[in-house]
Amino acid sequence: MAEAGAAEPVVDRLAIVGLGLIGSSIARGARRFGLCRTIVAVDADESVCARVRELGLADAATTDAAEGVAGADLVILCVPVGAAGAVAQAIRGHMKPGSVLSDVGSVKGAVVAAVTPHLDAGVTFVPAHPVAGTEYSGPDAGFATLFSGRWCILTPPEGADETAVARVRGLWEGLGAIVETMSAEHHDLVLAITSHVPHLIAYNIVGTAADLETVTQSEVIKFSAGGFRDFTRIAASDPTMWRDVFLNNKDAVLEMLGRFNEDLAALARAIRWGDGEALHDLFTRTRAIRRGIVAMGQETAEPDFGRARPSPEQTAEPQEPR
Amino acid sequence: MAEAGAAEPVVDRLAIVGLGLIGSSIARGARRFGLCRTIVAVDADESVCARVRELGLADAATTDAAEGVAGADLVILCVPVGAAGAVAQAIRGHMKPGSVLSDVGSVKGAVVAAVTPHLDAGVTFVPAHPVAGTEYSGPDAGFATLFSGRWCILTPPEGADETAVARVRGLWEGLGAIVETMSAEHHDLVLAITSHVPHLIAYNIVGTAADLETVTQSEVIKFSAGGFRDFTRIAASDPTMWRDVFLNNKDAVLEMLGRFNEDLAALARAIRWGDGEALHDLFTRTRAIRRGIVAMGQETAEPDFGRARPSPEQTAEPQEPR
Repeated sequence: MAEAGAAEPVVDRLAIVGLGLIGSSIARGARRFGLCRTIVAVDADESVCARVRELGLADAATTDAAEGVAGADLVILCVPVGAAGAVAQAIRGHMKPGSVLSDVGSVKGAVVAAVTPHLDAGVTFVPAHPVAGTEYSGPDAGFATLFSGRWCILTPPEGADETAVARVRGLWEGLGAIVETMSAEHHDLVLAITSHVPHLIAYNIVGTAADLETVTQSEVIKFSAGGFRDFTRIAASDPTMWRDVFLNNKDAVLEMLGRFNEDLAALARAIRWGDGEALHDLFTRTRAIRRGIVAMGQETAEPDFGRARPSPEQTAEPQEPR
Repeated sequence: MAEAGAAEPVVDRLAIVGLGLIGSSIARGARRFGLCRTIVAVDADESVCARVRELGLADAATTDAAEGVAGADLVILCVPVGAAGAVAQAIRGHMKPGSVLSDVGSVKGAVVAAVTPHLDAGVTFVPAHPVAGTEYSGPDAGFATLFSGRWCILTPPEGADETAVARVRGLWEGLGAIVETMSAEHHDLVLAITSHVPHLIAYNIVGTAADLETVTQSEVIKFSAGGFRDFTRIAASDPTMWRDVFLNNKDAVLEMLGRFNEDLAALARAIRWGDGEALHDLFTRTRAIRRGIVAMGQETAEPDFGRARPSPEQTAEPQEPR
């Protein structure tokens, strides 16, 4: 139910399929900011539905997608991108004519291809991707302000119904996001460099460090404040979500990774041949990009991300990670 | 001067050469925690000396290294590792017999090789490396608790005078660090994977993103919250310091980079051939390492590093970064 004093709801009945970090943040935000009258939660995992009921995140929670989406004005798929097609198939014939289907996937081309064949007549698909998240997963990890000040990219197909697009835009703006529209193809290229390849190299270096024989895992952990620990945050993201991202944005990821590798080879060569000027030039240039990100409010200017500095009593002898 | 109520000073006269982030943090900490009676600041840059006087970081500040180290019980070089040899040469013949020379360089083998030939008889060199920092530089960036709960690695040569080693250990423990001892060679290998290669790939991906023709710099900045922005923090670190690190730890960096590249090639192959299981396995394994780092107090458990979430009014249209 909408809170007192909230704005006019964007939709009457909102169905969210998948109550992980993103889905549960939408549920919390939609409730807090009065963006709908009724929220129905759908999750294939009964224990997630039970937790949704305990947390009071929705008016109803069900494992049955077809039942959950019935009568909804807006259905948002918040499942790993590899599962979007199967959910679309499961809800086929159950969505209300005139309703809108959307998603939050980090890949758009593959999701459009997987979902579109299952669309009922009279239902408009407006793909969306809120560029926000944390390294935590599940219904407990979400929070209402996750999308505040973050971008949400819509990739409506050409000629998409404008009322449907406006409904999805309204929801995201209501959640505090800044909405931008582009083609699914361009989205996948942009996100390959701003999100997918960064995750890939973070996962990769954490794996490389874990596998060394000459440096122990305990040493890697102890001395991680030299830079390594920054990478472990995104390398702690949900494994299923990220597996699906890479499998579903293969071409753009491999293209951007190819460029990354070329540049890294040039940098290795500069190190081998002692070309200090080339190194200094790059290291100076990269500072400007961060200044731009901070200036745009997409990053804190606090040193070290404003991380709380641990007190000495928090430190103890290393334990082998589970 | 030591603060009232502070512990017994570790040394009487402390000279710090180079008042950047690390040097100025040592000065602030030594003063706050009463670790010495007198602090002399040496910096080749007169404007840094002037700032040190304004901030009251030391009892005296001079551009003349030979003059600054005279009479000091402990001299700490806090200059880029490529400059350590030249400073050692400049202070040759000016250090007090029985005094101790130390440094804070991120590379140890090359610094030992550069400094040792210039050591006066009766002076002991105890190389040190506090594994701590932020992306900011200069005398204003330092703070007294920078080393609190962080490791400091000492690499004393075999047979080094134990009193001298204890003096350096005492200073770092007084600053709140946890001290560990290892060989210079092992240090350089450990730091190559926990710090140097992470910085290299961070600098590299920021450069790759800046150079794309298909994605604009403004798009990279806007959508950076998808992961990219994490890398820009360490890619905003001091260019001169990092140029010197790579030039002076070439072998270990190239060795670790070779392993990183092999692993990345395997990951790219898994993506190309759709091997979801290999991806999921790695992405699950990497979570454990972060848990270990958090458990050891080397990282916050707060989602997203506990970054302040920007309010919507902080966001504006992108400006081209300077």
